[in-house]
Amino acid sequence: MKIKQSIYILLILFLMFSCKENTHNPPNNPQKPIVEANDIDKIEPPHWWIGFKDTSLQLLVKHPKISLAKVFIENKNIFLEKVHTADSPNYLFLDLIIKGSANPGKFVINFKTKEGASLSQSYELKKRIKKSEDFIGFDSSDAIYLITPDRFRNSDVTNDSFENLHEKEINRKDNYARHGGDIKGIINSIDYIKDLGFTTVWPSPLLENNMHNGSYHGYAITDYYKVDPRFGTTSEYIELSAKLQKQNMKLIMDQVANHCGLEHWWMKDLPFKDWVNYQKHYEANKEKWSSDIVKRSSHRRTTNQDLYASKIDHKEMTDGWFVKGMPDLNQRNAFMAKYLIQNSIWWIEKLGLGGIRQDTYPYPDKDFMSNWAGAIMNEYPNFNIVGEEWSTNPLLIAYWQQGHKNVDGYNSNLRSTMDFAMQEKIVSGLNNEETWGTGLKEIYETLANDFHYTRPLDILVFPDNHDMSRIFTQLNGDIIKTKMALSYLAVLPRIFQMYYGTEILMNDFDRPGDHGLIRTDFPGGWKNDSINAFTGENLTTEKKEMQQFITNLLNFRKTSTAIHNGKTMHFVPKAKTYLLARYNESETIVHVLNKNEKPVAINLDRFKELELTGKTLKNVLTGETILWNKSLKLPKKGSYLFTTKY
Amino acid sequence: MKIKQSIYILLILFLMFSCKENTHNPPNNPQKPIVEANDIDKIEPPHWWIGFKDTSLQLLVKHPKISLAKVFIENKNIFLEKVHTADSPNYLFLDLIIKGSANPGKFVINFKTKEGASLSQSYELKKRIKKSEDFIGFDSSDAIYLITPDRFRNSDVTNDSFENLHEKEINRKDNYARHGGDIKGIINSIDYIKDLGFTTVWPSPLLENNMHNGSYHGYAITDYYKVDPRFGTTSEYIELSAKLQKQNMKLIMDQVANHCGLEHWWMKDLPFKDWVNYQKHYEANKEKWSSDIVKRSSHRRTTNQDLYASKIDHKEMTDGWFVKGMPDLNQRNAFMAKYLIQNSIWWIEKLGLGGIRQDTYPYPDKDFMSNWAGAIMNEYPNFNIVGEEWSTNPLLIAYWQQGHKNVDGYNSNLRSTMDFAMQEKIVSGLNNEETWGTGLKEIYETLANDFHYTRPLDILVFPDNHDMSRIFTQLNGDIIKTKMALSYLAVLPRIFQMYYGTEILMNDFDRPGDHGLIRTDFPGGWKNDSINAFTGENLTTEKKEMQQFITNLLNFRKTSTAIHNGKTMHFVPKAKTYLLARYNESETIVHVLNKNEKPVAINLDRFKELELTGKTLKNVLTGETILWNKSLKLPKKGSYLFTTKY
Repeated sequence: MKIKQSIYILLILFLMFSCKENTHNPPNNPQKPIVEANDIDKIEPPHWWIGFKDTSLQLLVKHPKISLAKVFIENKNIFLEKVHTADSPNYLFLDLIIKGSANPGKFVINFKTKEGASLSQSYELKKRIKKSEDFIGFDSSDAIYLITPDRFRNSDVTNDSFENLHEKEINRKDNYARHGGDIKGIINSIDYIKDLGFTTVWPSPLLENNMHNGSYHGYAITDYYKVDPRFGTTSEYIELSAKLQKQNMKLIMDQVANHCGLEHWWMKDLPFKDWVNYQKHYEANKEKWSSDIVKRSSHRRTTNQDLYASKIDHKEMTDGWFVKGMPDLNQRNAFMAKYLIQNSIWWIEKLGLGGIRQDTYPYPDKDFMSNWAGAIMNEYPNFNIVGEEWSTNPLLIAYWQQGHKNVDGYNSNLRSTMDFAMQEKIVSGLNNEETWGTGLKEIYETLANDFHYTRPLDILVFPDNHDMSRIFTQLNGDIIKTKMALSYLAVLPRIFQMYYGTEILMNDFDRPGDHGLIRTDFPGGWKNDSINAFTGENLTTEKKEMQQFITNLLNFRKTSTAIHNGKTMHFVPKAKTYLLARYNESETIVHVLNKNEKPVAINLDRFKELELTGKTLKNVLTGETILWNKSLKLPKKGSYLFTTKY
Repeated sequence: MKIKQSIYILLILFLMFSCKENTHNPPNNPQKPIVEANDIDKIEPPHWWIGFKDTSLQLLVKHPKISLAKVFIENKNIFLEKVHTADSPNYLFLDLIIKGSANPGKFVINFKTKEGASLSQSYELKKRIKKSEDFIGFDSSDAIYLITPDRFRNSDVTNDSFENLHEKEINRKDNYARHGGDIKGIINSIDYIKDLGFTTVWPSPLLENNMHNGSYHGYAITDYYKVDPRFGTTSEYIELSAKLQKQNMKLIMDQVANHCGLEHWWMKDLPFKDWVNYQKHYEANKEKWSSDIVKRSSHRRTTNQDLYASKIDHKEMTDGWFVKGMPDLNQRNAFMAKYLIQNSIWWIEKLGLGGIRQDTYPYPDKDFMSNWAGAIMNEYPNFNIVGEEWSTNPLLIAYWQQGHKNVDGYNSNLRSTMDFAMQEKIVSGLNNEETWGTGLKEIYETLANDFHYTRPLDILVFPDNHDMSRIFTQLNGDIIKTKMALSYLAVLPRIFQMYYGTEILMNDFDRPGDHGLIRTDFPGGWKNDSINAFTGENLTTEKKEMQQFITNLLNFRKTSTAIHNGKTMHFVPKAKTYLLARYNESETIVHVLNKNEKPVAINLDRFKELELTGKTLKNVLTGETILWNKSLKLPKKGSYLFTTKY
């Protein structure tokens, strides 16, 4: 570099820092000093950002008898549009407009109580760390590693228990108690996860679940703005995301808009009479609250689509509580709706997320869900959200995907849905005998249904997850079948997701389907574990082989553009073999599921459309090369994955 | 009536008849006398009509070495647009345009052979008997009685056997031989069918099946323009249709565009090299033709929709023969396509049909099928066609229905499809225990899929048909369940169809699913039958009761506009009961499936959306009335059908 250039650059850098410095000055009203006032008990979101498309912000203010107060904001860049009282006297909802002229920094909200007292609360608007377009959501080039954090790795034993939380102690002997896994544990495992070939991490919810029991799973959130201290801190959550991004990896946040935990702070003083569903029933019975008394969801999710469904059936599905410990949020209350949307955006921005997984997608009010997803995608056009609709009915899987032409006109704004149909059929197709209608044809015909989906590439497929029996268990402990399932799913025109531990054949044979058992501790995640899957110590050969299999498979997947977004061609299963190809201009990959125990040779005449004749292909899983000519030898049962590009 | 008026009317009538008389005069070329020339071996269609929207007509001419002849038509109203030779020298295809000025009557086609000989063939254009708009297709107000004619009623023993046909004798002891039933038998049963409450008759194919065996079922047509003499004559077919119309009933013709019978006359001298699929293979092997040699269809029908299907798989499905005795017609041959379309229109016009049922819908070329259905519906805008896609996958049922927004842009032009999904679930839902996901909920959730269909009302539902085990067998001989299935299906927003004999509990217990057995002779259809279901003679009480049940059910259905086209509401099955309502402004009908063996009372609070409180309803099946108030008593297991209109 020449000296003249260097001077210029230094000058530019100096100017940049000067400018930056400026923006850290008392921002909005430079005449007055920043007031660090904290008179108000609770204000949510705890802070916000400038520079969103949507300039509105609704603050939930909670303080004794605050509803009687008058509110003032002395800042020309913040317009207090409206002040809403609630049904409880201890809440106010403030509608703010953040003008384009607003700078990052703090401003003060003043509350003048009826008694004449004055309360002040400072509120911060931060500068956004990157552009909206740069929040890139997970897509079909990604492989997602799903983790139940409490059960994955305990890297910080100092956060295992807290006196002020209901569930105080960890107890690894109880599969429904907390075991101590934490965010630090995931951070320390990034290399391990990356080496396996995964590009994205989805931990189940990490927000506070201050429940009396079963808090480990995270789906009973008691504070939407607080990381559960047993998992760690918001800083650690940010650190996790940042370290993943440094490795070109993405973080998915698991969010829950349908319900909160019964110990959520607002349950003691609900802002509105309709803040949660069946609220009157709850309030009348809360002293003797039990599984018998709670009005649970009917779980009849088809009432969302069914043109003939009665209103009562739809209400019983959508308004009923998931379980007695999970109050069902009423998203038809406009303040609740805004609260949830802002909360999601807050975490996307705070963590720099690469995606959201939304729990129990069909249970909240579906118009709200459309607005929620729409608001997020409007703010972050390249983001992604996947919604959980646990249905094997392709009609429902398709219904929830954005852009599907639904008869009722519904547009979900949801980019990704989940392929429970394929999950079911990969299992039955591998387990069942090969007959006219069963076996590999079940898998083939399920994939054939893709013609119904708006964007198959945006659908998530998976061998298993945290709510179902592990794939190795579903396939009756058959390692070869497990590999067949994994490799087939990994090459589909889909986003691929796997549950932690599948790489070491974790299973739930003892009590198939038992949630606590499914979510078994990952060996090596705890100090003194006799087996360590991170290092391979005392791991059986079979388990090591499966780790290697996943490593080969997913590291190949990472580089294969034919898998990421190539075209697809498959052939009717014959003679216990099923061939699927993915291809683009630069690469063809061929995947074969072979159920023949003895060596067979497939006549390749039938596959000439693939235009592979005379080409040499590499077996991704073994490293061998083959010549694609007259026949393809398959020495044993299992999956075969070939590529033309190596 | 006053005298003056009467005179006027007489005058008008006189003028009308005078005009009519005129149109019967020698039509097209009044100067010349009509020539009755019949030099040509075969010309098809055998005659045609004037007055179609589509003025083109393509004649297949078959005569030794006719390809070398020159063709002349001396008639100013008929324009010979083009003469096509074929691959065989014994065929010509003539493209005619029938001008708007053409009148009914005959004209002559002259052929001048290479040797200088002259052949003449007169060809008739008839006057249409009614307007296109007046061909009204079956719809959701109809209940269809499906008959296997050979097994229903033998009213003409003189047509039981013919020396010049391959299968000469009837043999009632062999379930795969002919039994002698005929068109006359159906004609004689119109009153019986009407009294049961049916409005439409669908006999399986009645055209010539001059096959060596298995000809009774009718699906191996050997002459597309000839009624099988063992069934009767074209005149009798016309008589059947006319007599049905006189009773305000409709006739559906069962047509087969996918394949013909191996003994079809053209198989001995195929006009083109690609008249049938795998023709070369057939011609090379016809001497040793067998089930082992024939290239059969793979039956992988999803290749019609699957975006990932290989071309070879689609070819193997669509081009393969159904069985060795059924050559697969190549509808991509434009002459074959035109032949089949004209043949369908010929029979619609000839018989005054009320609908077509098209066999094996997904097997012929699907673009042809769209053109075929489109041509018919273009000519007869109020007509209806139902296509047989034997799939329980709602995606496929929907795909084939006209107007469905298919991703591949396909529009079938087919108004009606078949609900094999509901057929499957009515059986499993009634047979299975009531659990979270099985039992009545299977039926409920299947109906919930209606949101996916373009027009549920145009879908045909049925308890059974001629190709599957009878409903009484499928429901394990349970009469109550059989009634439950029938009444539920009959009140759905669907076209209802039932197979003959279900009203007397016909079954195939001895060899479930055996086609010959399914198509058992209807008792009383043969002279000296000891049991007679037409008269009730020697019929068990149970069977008589089922006849009465159907009679009550379908005669009610006939008058219920709420069933024909009312709205639908149903309620999630609870406590082993499932309630479905159909309603319009003038009527509400309530149908309950009740699986409780002991008396129960349903709390009616849950059903207040039906707005029935305080109303008196009549039980259609028992005649009793009930007050719809707090609870509904269901004394026993079974189906209950109530109406507000009586």
